[in-house]
Amino acid sequence: MDRIQKIIEKIELIDRQMMEKTQKRLDSLTKPRGSLGRLEELAKIVAGIKREDSPNLKNKVIFTLAADHGVAREGVSVFPQEVTSQMVYNFLQGGAGINVLARHAGARVVVVDMGVACDLKPHPALVIRKINYGTKNMMKEPAMTREEAIRSIDAGIEIVEEELTKGVDIIGTGDMGIGNTTASSAILAVIAGTSAEEVTGRGTGIDNSKLKRKKDAVVETLKTNKPDPDDPIDILSKVGGFEIGGLVGIMLAGASRRIPVVIDGFISGAASLLATGLEPKVRDYLIPSHCSAEAGHKGMLRFLGLRPLFDLDLRLGEGTGAALGINLVDAGVKILTEMATFHDAGVSEGV
Amino acid sequence: MDRIQKIIEKIELIDRQMMEKTQKRLDSLTKPRGSLGRLEELAKIVAGIKREDSPNLKNKVIFTLAADHGVAREGVSVFPQEVTSQMVYNFLQGGAGINVLARHAGARVVVVDMGVACDLKPHPALVIRKINYGTKNMMKEPAMTREEAIRSIDAGIEIVEEELTKGVDIIGTGDMGIGNTTASSAILAVIAGTSAEEVTGRGTGIDNSKLKRKKDAVVETLKTNKPDPDDPIDILSKVGGFEIGGLVGIMLAGASRRIPVVIDGFISGAASLLATGLEPKVRDYLIPSHCSAEAGHKGMLRFLGLRPLFDLDLRLGEGTGAALGINLVDAGVKILTEMATFHDAGVSEGV
Repeated sequence: MDRIQKIIEKIELIDRQMMEKTQKRLDSLTKPRGSLGRLEELAKIVAGIKREDSPNLKNKVIFTLAADHGVAREGVSVFPQEVTSQMVYNFLQGGAGINVLARHAGARVVVVDMGVACDLKPHPALVIRKINYGTKNMMKEPAMTREEAIRSIDAGIEIVEEELTKGVDIIGTGDMGIGNTTASSAILAVIAGTSAEEVTGRGTGIDNSKLKRKKDAVVETLKTNKPDPDDPIDILSKVGGFEIGGLVGIMLAGASRRIPVVIDGFISGAASLLATGLEPKVRDYLIPSHCSAEAGHKGMLRFLGLRPLFDLDLRLGEGTGAALGINLVDAGVKILTEMATFHDAGVSEGV
Repeated sequence: MDRIQKIIEKIELIDRQMMEKTQKRLDSLTKPRGSLGRLEELAKIVAGIKREDSPNLKNKVIFTLAADHGVAREGVSVFPQEVTSQMVYNFLQGGAGINVLARHAGARVVVVDMGVACDLKPHPALVIRKINYGTKNMMKEPAMTREEAIRSIDAGIEIVEEELTKGVDIIGTGDMGIGNTTASSAILAVIAGTSAEEVTGRGTGIDNSKLKRKKDAVVETLKTNKPDPDDPIDILSKVGGFEIGGLVGIMLAGASRRIPVVIDGFISGAASLLATGLEPKVRDYLIPSHCSAEAGHKGMLRFLGLRPLFDLDLRLGEGTGAALGINLVDAGVKILTEMATFHDAGVSEGV
């Protein structure tokens, strides 16, 4: 817990003065005031986070964390568990959705094995931080030990710290793990105090009978474990996942280093609930990307107080929504840094 | 009218069979079926429009058409009329919002003088298609003659035809013209049969007293001109603008050449109403980008039957929303053409 505590102590409030200064700059650019709406807002947030008046998002990094879930055994997904490892290989070969959208956004993808159920073949681009071979079946016992939960967060912190040598100007979060919408639903239910009915959705696209089973699994999981809503580590250990813990660490590390963190969908949202539970100041470093098609996501974002940038009915995960979000943040920052002012362009200002 | 009629005759239905084939391809890619939501839909639409199973959007072109409006004299905008020409120079120097966002999307901007009120200094990148020195004040008389309306559409068609030699794989539409939200409101009111109250918004950001004046201007304009709702050329000539006519031509030409046309905000939407009025098949070639902050835009898109991709509170025009839209369409097409299949990646399919 020492490492987590130290990182949390480093997290400062974002720079409101820089945001005001940025607003003035935005208002001097050749456009009606505020007419680029949320793009302007994004530029302001990034300036406030980075404490820079001309931020540059050259190094965009999406961390896609993979792990398996014991609860997958309960038939809560369309896909069998081996898809987690198969998709990791797909990420490493560049053929997955996240690879395509990260390239589109000019971002690199860091693929991490946080706890896939088998030993993965080594690959130069694969970061191995395996906490264990998948979580336990949380319907019957805690998903992991408290010590494993802490280690998974520590690993997330370390992954960011190591990547800093290559340059990290903005972070996107992503996940892969058959069964992880079930864990995320359980986390949301505990923290927001909502029913399993409200927080459980179709994930990769399950039918009604599997959806019923998944809801029952969430109810049973909460009954078995009784996580303490005020203790994020307790929640993570009892009903979380190793990739979710890793994402918590990534958010804490990003905030401590003044790096904006663009969050993906439902799983990243569950990690955000835990990260902001550990330290509320983290919230201002999180930039939501999309509202996904997953049933509980809208309520989750509302609970987090984050207004999504777009809603394109995505429900893939991997960081795909974050990649599109990073692309938009980039556009907003370029508005701030590349547009001409009324004065420089010789354009009359409005009255 | 001959040229317009010839182009309209060339417009075919989009290729539904190719869209079905594309759906099958999308379903074979390593992701849960449909999990990339509207990105998949965009890929399908582009394949259907271009009749290609692996479309390539290398050449992205945004046409930003500028013209002045006699009604600007009535004090309906925050900005004075000279801003139209000043902004054209800004476009040519690369300092405007559209330049930044087009660069971000990898698109080139074609700037056209369709009817700016003064003679612009020549510039190698400026296309001059001036129909007249701004429209007449439509509150008192028709904005232009019927012959000018036809010539403005012809010019739009020609601009696209000329650009084809450089390659045009996707088109974005944009506008610049102080007073043109007033003209667009009038067009919407005539075609959708809604009141001036409902269709008139704050444009560049006018206050309540100017908004009242603008609404009165729309009411008065319609009373003076009584445009025939069933005759798009009549509407364009009486309450339109030269850049709006040019955009109509661009949409017709794009559709006739099987090129997807990503439409920007309220002014492009008004042009869409006229273009689809001339030929309903055009609609399937139009891809909406955003729902703008302009009051009447939501209803306009609903009337057009187009569901916007995003809502970022933009209200700048110039083609800025279209640039972001093109960027998303590009992402969708890359999903189709760059992702690995379940078979190739050795990933188990869902059950």
